[in-house]
Amino acid sequence: MAPDDESPVKRIGIVGAGSMGSMMALGIAELGFDISIWDISPDNVKEALSRKPEGGQEGKNGKIDGFTDIAEFVGSLSSEDPKVLIFSITHGNAADEVIAKMGDHLGKGFIVLDGGNEHYRNTERRQRELSDKGVAWIGMGVSGGYQSARRGPSMSPGGDKAAVQKVLPILEKFAAKASSPEDTKESPCVAYIGPGGSGHYVKTMHNGIENGMLSTLCEAWGIMRYCLGMSNGDIGKVLDRWNSEGSLRSTFLVQIGAEICQRKKTPKGDGQGEGTGEGGYVLDDVLDKVVQDDDSSEGTGFWSVMEAAYRRVTAPTIAAGQFLRYASGERAERLEVAKELQTPPPKQADVPDKEAFVEELCKAVYASFVCSFCQGLELISKASRAEQWNVDLATCIRIWREGCIIQSSQIADMLEAALAAQQGKETSDIKLLKPVAQALRDNYPALKNIVLKATEWDAVIPSLSASLEYLKYDGSTALPTQFMEAEMDFFGAHAYDRPHVKGEDPGKAKKGAHHYEWRPA
Amino acid sequence: MAPDDESPVKRIGIVGAGSMGSMMALGIAELGFDISIWDISPDNVKEALSRKPEGGQEGKNGKIDGFTDIAEFVGSLSSEDPKVLIFSITHGNAADEVIAKMGDHLGKGFIVLDGGNEHYRNTERRQRELSDKGVAWIGMGVSGGYQSARRGPSMSPGGDKAAVQKVLPILEKFAAKASSPEDTKESPCVAYIGPGGSGHYVKTMHNGIENGMLSTLCEAWGIMRYCLGMSNGDIGKVLDRWNSEGSLRSTFLVQIGAEICQRKKTPKGDGQGEGTGEGGYVLDDVLDKVVQDDDSSEGTGFWSVMEAAYRRVTAPTIAAGQFLRYASGERAERLEVAKELQTPPPKQADVPDKEAFVEELCKAVYASFVCSFCQGLELISKASRAEQWNVDLATCIRIWREGCIIQSSQIADMLEAALAAQQGKETSDIKLLKPVAQALRDNYPALKNIVLKATEWDAVIPSLSASLEYLKYDGSTALPTQFMEAEMDFFGAHAYDRPHVKGEDPGKAKKGAHHYEWRPA
Repeated sequence: MAPDDESPVKRIGIVGAGSMGSMMALGIAELGFDISIWDISPDNVKEALSRKPEGGQEGKNGKIDGFTDIAEFVGSLSSEDPKVLIFSITHGNAADEVIAKMGDHLGKGFIVLDGGNEHYRNTERRQRELSDKGVAWIGMGVSGGYQSARRGPSMSPGGDKAAVQKVLPILEKFAAKASSPEDTKESPCVAYIGPGGSGHYVKTMHNGIENGMLSTLCEAWGIMRYCLGMSNGDIGKVLDRWNSEGSLRSTFLVQIGAEICQRKKTPKGDGQGEGTGEGGYVLDDVLDKVVQDDDSSEGTGFWSVMEAAYRRVTAPTIAAGQFLRYASGERAERLEVAKELQTPPPKQADVPDKEAFVEELCKAVYASFVCSFCQGLELISKASRAEQWNVDLATCIRIWREGCIIQSSQIADMLEAALAAQQGKETSDIKLLKPVAQALRDNYPALKNIVLKATEWDAVIPSLSASLEYLKYDGSTALPTQFMEAEMDFFGAHAYDRPHVKGEDPGKAKKGAHHYEWRPA
Repeated sequence: MAPDDESPVKRIGIVGAGSMGSMMALGIAELGFDISIWDISPDNVKEALSRKPEGGQEGKNGKIDGFTDIAEFVGSLSSEDPKVLIFSITHGNAADEVIAKMGDHLGKGFIVLDGGNEHYRNTERRQRELSDKGVAWIGMGVSGGYQSARRGPSMSPGGDKAAVQKVLPILEKFAAKASSPEDTKESPCVAYIGPGGSGHYVKTMHNGIENGMLSTLCEAWGIMRYCLGMSNGDIGKVLDRWNSEGSLRSTFLVQIGAEICQRKKTPKGDGQGEGTGEGGYVLDDVLDKVVQDDDSSEGTGFWSVMEAAYRRVTAPTIAAGQFLRYASGERAERLEVAKELQTPPPKQADVPDKEAFVEELCKAVYASFVCSFCQGLELISKASRAEQWNVDLATCIRIWREGCIIQSSQIADMLEAALAAQQGKETSDIKLLKPVAQALRDNYPALKNIVLKATEWDAVIPSLSASLEYLKYDGSTALPTQFMEAEMDFFGAHAYDRPHVKGEDPGKAKKGAHHYEWRPA
């Protein structure tokens, strides 16, 4: 059935019936669209068809048909243009193989929304390759995990503007809805991002920010668990409080963290998969091994670090989170190294006023979250200028308000207002925005004290400490790199600028005016 | 004149008359080879010819001829094979343009040693493109700066083995010479590294290690200068002591640091370029702005960080150093951010026993240096396995003993012995080598205490603190990523392994066996 009478699109094709693809099929069917879903694995298709759309308002549920023959799949779409496909498969070769399989079935009139995580350069290559055939290939970030994929994700489509505008009404219906202090009405968490690979780039940086936040929060959990000796249940209550008010209010990762910490195993299991062990927390059954990077199922995390290095943007919080994940994934090697290094484990600490300490920890986490946002947004800003994408950062914040993993109300309120106040003025350094600077300034003492205490107690805090260093060096007037520059001039004749000399200090980031012949060749 | 009667190579062509190229011309001429040198800039050629070879033993100085016409340049080489060219120009397009310019003048019988810093993938592309023409393109790392380029650098040639072996006797004459406890005789700091881009890869990682060391040492300088309130002269004396004995003995960066710190300006200038200011230290005239990355004159630093992210190797010390350089380069922006953030500058501290503190600082620097080496070597090891290069890590240490920037006697002694004791057994984690583990274990308390103190004093210590975190998490048996893994399973159904379950703990770095449905979609 048709979602509404005006829409020319009655049926949407979904390529890939994994957890994201099958949930999008359900979610979009529940808006009233019919769905064709294809996967290379018949089992995946069968699994996707096992759940029926049922959540549509006023009984507006479309139907879902499954395919394993790709010609039949494409043929099932309406003969009218545009023909809309959503890709939800692994990045890299997989998409190219499916495109090759589709051959001439994919042609003029098709709009393909690639909703998987993909490197933006791959997206741009496909855009070039397919534009001759009349296919609009749109790189679209889809964030929020599989629950959001059904209930309404946050989406960042980028590519040909006219093509995106044709499907935007559908995406707006599907997207999570958010309200902001700037807006009285609800607004959908989707918008046209820009040309080329900008949509996938924005998603990559969303995931980079997510990396920094995930790492920061798990470090805070570690401090509470191992140094304060708190139970998971008590940590969960703290996270509930953080999530309910103040600077961390309505922060998705904090909110689900609270749920996770408080979930107890039931004697006979609760049918959700927690195993048959008795008592204790489900979390106790989770090993410390994060393998998403190691098994190459997701590229966004390491792409964000590679981009930071490539585009010369300081992003230490994000990078520290990435490295922690790598170390965690190689647990077998880690245990061998542990035997040799014998690095002391986190110590239980004597903290007289636990409540005050936890309050300070909240501030430190907030400061590190804001650092992650600064780093991700500065990367988008720098890439956007270099690639001439003209991405609007306030729009990124708006579409990240709901539905996605990095949603955080106070941070979004602060950033959206500050970016809007720029009135289109270029914002290359987010820390120059006054409310952001104030937030960082106000919480620096807490971040510093938490790093001090956690270091004393041997807690693992790579992202928290990287954030502290970031705030010190990115806003320093006298870095110790004075000594580094002299060393590089010594052996490399790299040449330096001089303090207090006009045109040199601060001057541009270019080779300096002076070389001192420290040691003749 | 011929360097010796047996060598078929009498004249060597050098492409690029910058500081490295012109110094190599002098250095190789002083071995008795005649040199043809070409540069796109006539001024560079003129400058290169202004200094005459004069250091040859027994008057064995070759002559240097300059060229701006590339056909004449190539034609000046002997008609006998092999015809040897050394490239010393900027990475990326520059080399491709020169190759295009040479056209058919470059053909069968040529061995080209690309001695510039180059991304190993570019090197491999050129190897493929030129092999059809009969040209052996060798990617050769050359380290040590311009002084070493004349007096004997450290070199890592990689590519076609037969071609490298033809020129190895020349390179061995030219290279710096080292003696190791394993070897009674001196050995040249050059060896065949492996096929493909392995030679340039090893140089990239040399420079990554250099990054971590440069950053660590400048942080230590900052602590002494700003927190202990020491004069540059006094810091120089400390560095002299560190360089003379113990774990940091004969460490090039420490040794030149000592020279730099103690170099005073003379009233009328010393003719070496220190300007006309009166009194004080030359170092005081150096601004804290390191721009080598920003002006794209060198890629190795950021390539090493990109490789760490791409190959999933934890390299936080190296990455922290890179980010500090980025922040330093953008001084103008930094000063603006400083106004907003008002992060406190480093405090002068009250340290009753300065000598003991400086002793502890030496240990912390050493620990962080060793961390840098572990990270760079682990990157080489992982890349070598993936690319089937079969690089011998002990060989890398041997050629880094003299002539190069990261030379450090105690570290080289420890690593070379430990790697040799492996007797060819694969070494993917350097921290598993017992002497390395012991060094890290013994110096962990000092590193921790320095990080604590420096954090308290607001000193800038990104690499030192990253090293401390690295030692904690790379050797942890219980990481807080347990919480991260649960969060990722919540929203992404990423699935986890369970503790104490055979096959899962430690298990492989692959998707876990269990998913808990924390919140149904």
